[in-house]
Amino acid sequence: MKNLYFDNAATTRIDERVLETMLPYLKESYGNPSSAHGMGRTGRLAVETSRRKIASILNCHPNSIVFTSCGTESANMALRCAVTGVRLSHVVTSRTEHACVLQTARNLHFSGKASLSYVAINDQGTAQLTDLNELLEKSHGRSMVALMHANNETGTPLNMALAGEICRRHKAIFFSDCVQTVGHYPIDLSQMPVDMISASAHKFHGPKGIGFLYIREGLPLQALLTGGSHERNMRAGTENVASIVGMAIALEIAARNYAEDSKHTRQLKLALKEKLIEAGAVVNGVDNDSALYTVLNVRFPKTQATENLLLELDMAGVAVSGGSACSAGKGGSHVMEAIGASDAINIRFSFSKYNTMEEVNRLGVLLEELLTLQI
Amino acid sequence: MKNLYFDNAATTRIDERVLETMLPYLKESYGNPSSAHGMGRTGRLAVETSRRKIASILNCHPNSIVFTSCGTESANMALRCAVTGVRLSHVVTSRTEHACVLQTARNLHFSGKASLSYVAINDQGTAQLTDLNELLEKSHGRSMVALMHANNETGTPLNMALAGEICRRHKAIFFSDCVQTVGHYPIDLSQMPVDMISASAHKFHGPKGIGFLYIREGLPLQALLTGGSHERNMRAGTENVASIVGMAIALEIAARNYAEDSKHTRQLKLALKEKLIEAGAVVNGVDNDSALYTVLNVRFPKTQATENLLLELDMAGVAVSGGSACSAGKGGSHVMEAIGASDAINIRFSFSKYNTMEEVNRLGVLLEELLTLQI
Repeated sequence: MKNLYFDNAATTRIDERVLETMLPYLKESYGNPSSAHGMGRTGRLAVETSRRKIASILNCHPNSIVFTSCGTESANMALRCAVTGVRLSHVVTSRTEHACVLQTARNLHFSGKASLSYVAINDQGTAQLTDLNELLEKSHGRSMVALMHANNETGTPLNMALAGEICRRHKAIFFSDCVQTVGHYPIDLSQMPVDMISASAHKFHGPKGIGFLYIREGLPLQALLTGGSHERNMRAGTENVASIVGMAIALEIAARNYAEDSKHTRQLKLALKEKLIEAGAVVNGVDNDSALYTVLNVRFPKTQATENLLLELDMAGVAVSGGSACSAGKGGSHVMEAIGASDAINIRFSFSKYNTMEEVNRLGVLLEELLTLQI
Repeated sequence: MKNLYFDNAATTRIDERVLETMLPYLKESYGNPSSAHGMGRTGRLAVETSRRKIASILNCHPNSIVFTSCGTESANMALRCAVTGVRLSHVVTSRTEHACVLQTARNLHFSGKASLSYVAINDQGTAQLTDLNELLEKSHGRSMVALMHANNETGTPLNMALAGEICRRHKAIFFSDCVQTVGHYPIDLSQMPVDMISASAHKFHGPKGIGFLYIREGLPLQALLTGGSHERNMRAGTENVASIVGMAIALEIAARNYAEDSKHTRQLKLALKEKLIEAGAVVNGVDNDSALYTVLNVRFPKTQATENLLLELDMAGVAVSGGSACSAGKGGSHVMEAIGASDAINIRFSFSKYNTMEEVNRLGVLLEELLTLQI
C-alpha cells in the first residue's frame, strides 16, 4: 500500500515548481549576494525580488521582512531582541505556544531579563483575552505579548484583532507566531494589529531551513545574529539565496490558490472528522470553521484498541502525529496537557493540497480495521 | 568571453554530486526528522548519518557537532554562549577577524558582558602570540580567545598549535573560525588544541544556509536558539535535512581529494601571483606556502591605471573581490586597514578546484591589457 502522509503541520512536501525555481540558484547562479560583481548582483537581485514578492503578498514594506533560517530563529529574534532592544520587562504568552516561543520566554525569565505571565486558556485551547487585558493592566513595566495565530497541534485560532487591540491599548509589543497560517490564509499586515510575525517556508510547500520575521517599521529591534551588514544589519550571514527564492515562490503559489486549496483541504478534514467521530473520537480544540482547515486533532479514550494506535498507523505506513514534531520524544505534548487532554490517546491528522479524498477513504478503512480488530 | 569566477573565498559553486545527493531530501524524503513515523525516521537517519560522516572526517565525537544555518550563526553561538554559559569575563580576538566574530565580540563588550582585548598583528596579518600570552597573563577573569584558522582576505594562517597551547596554559576557551580551512585542509580535532571551531558548507562546494559548530565534549555550552529539543537541546529548529546531507557529502568529497585539489589550486595561485608581481603588484599577507592556497591578495599603488581595476574586471565579467563579501558596501576592508594596506588598491583573487590554468592565463592577458592601456 502506498504510504499516507497526514502530518503536514510538521512539514510539507515541496511544490515541484518551487524546486524548479530554486535550482538555477543552487547551480550556476551561486554568487554571494554581498559580492560587488555581476555574480553577486544576480544573487542580490534574487534576494530583493523575493523580499518584494513576499511583502507585496502580505501588504507590508519590503524592509520589514528579515530572512532567517527558520520559524524558531524568527521567534527567538522576536522575543530576545524585543526584550533587550525595546527594554520590555514583562513577557505574556500562553502554555499552548510552540516550544520556540515558550522555551525562549522561559529562558528570558530564568535569566532575569523579564517577568513571565501566562494568559489563561480554556479547554479548547482558546486564549482568554479578558485575562490578557487584566495581565497587561496589572503590569508595571512595558510588556511583550507572544500569542500564536493558530495552534499547531489543535488548530485553535486566536482572535487576532481583539488581541492586537488590547496590546495597543496597553502599548504592549505584540508578536504572533504565524507559522501555521502564513501560506494558508490571506494575511494583510496593513490591517492586522500586530508588531511582528514569524513564518517558515517548509510549512507551505517551500524548502526547510528558511523563514522570515516581519518587524513593523519603526520598532527599534537589533540583530540577534551579528556580523556583516546583511539584511540591513538585522541578520548577519550569507543569504541562503536559493531557499529565499523558493520561499517567495511557495508563498506566491499559495496566495494564488488560497480559495481552491483551502476548500479542497477543508473537505478532507471534514470527511475524516466524520469517520473519526463515528469511531468514538472527540475533537480536541475548537471544532468549527474558525479552526485551521489543515489540522484535525482528536482524542480516543485509552483502551486496548487505542493505546498503540499511533504505532500501528506508523507500521501501516501512515504518517500522523501524537503532538507536534518538535515535542516528539519529550514525553507528551505540553499543549494536550494545557487543555486537559493528556490522559487520552491524542492524534493529530494534518492535511495539505496534496492529500486526496481517496487517501482519506483509505485512512478511514484502515482506522476502522485497527479500532475494530482490537475491541 | 565566458565569465571568470575568482571569488571562491566568498562562496563556491556547488559540486554536482552534492546537489544530486540533496535532491531526494528536497523531493520525496521530506519528513521532519523530529516526527515519530517512517518519513520522520528517514530524515533523522539522514541527519545523524551526516553528523557521523563529518565527525569521522574531523576525528571527533558526533555529539560534538551542532548543525547551524551558517558560519555566522556558529560564531555567534560560540562567542555568545561561551561568554554566558562558561561565565567568561574577557574576550581576546584580533582586528583581522571576520565580521561575525569581531562584531559579536564588540557587541558582547558594549553590552557589558565581557571586556575586550585585541591581539597585536604584524603587517602580514599574523597574530602575535607573545602578545596573546601577555594579554591572558594580565587577565583577571577567565578568558575566551577567538582567532581564525586562516584569514579570509589575506590567507594568513594562525599558528594553531601554539595559540592552543597558550590558551590551555591560561585555561582560556579557544574558538577558531575555520570557515576558510574546513573542506580545504585535513583537520584532526583530536590533535588540534581548540575548544570550538566553525564551518560553512558553501565555502567548500556545499549549499548556502548550512554550517556547523564543533564544541569539545564537556564544554558547558547552552543553545543560542531555544525551543524544541533538536540537536540534543543545543540548537532548536526543524533540521535542514537536504542541506545537512549536502554539507556532509561536500566535506567527504573534499576530504577524498585534499592532496589533488590543493596541488591544482596552488599551481593556479602561484601562476597568477607571478603575473601580478610582474605587473607591479605586492602580495598582502603572508607570502609563502603556509598561507591559504585558495587566496591571493595583492596591492597596487593607487594610480590612474589601477584605481578602477575592480570595476573594470567586473565589466569584463571577472568576479574578484576588494575585501570580503561580508564587508562589501561597508566602505573598505577592516582587514586591509589593520595591516596598513588600506591606502592601496587591494584585490583578492580566490581559487577553487573548478578554476583552470586556461582561466588564469585569460585573466593574466586581461590584467595586462587593463594595466597597460591606462598607463
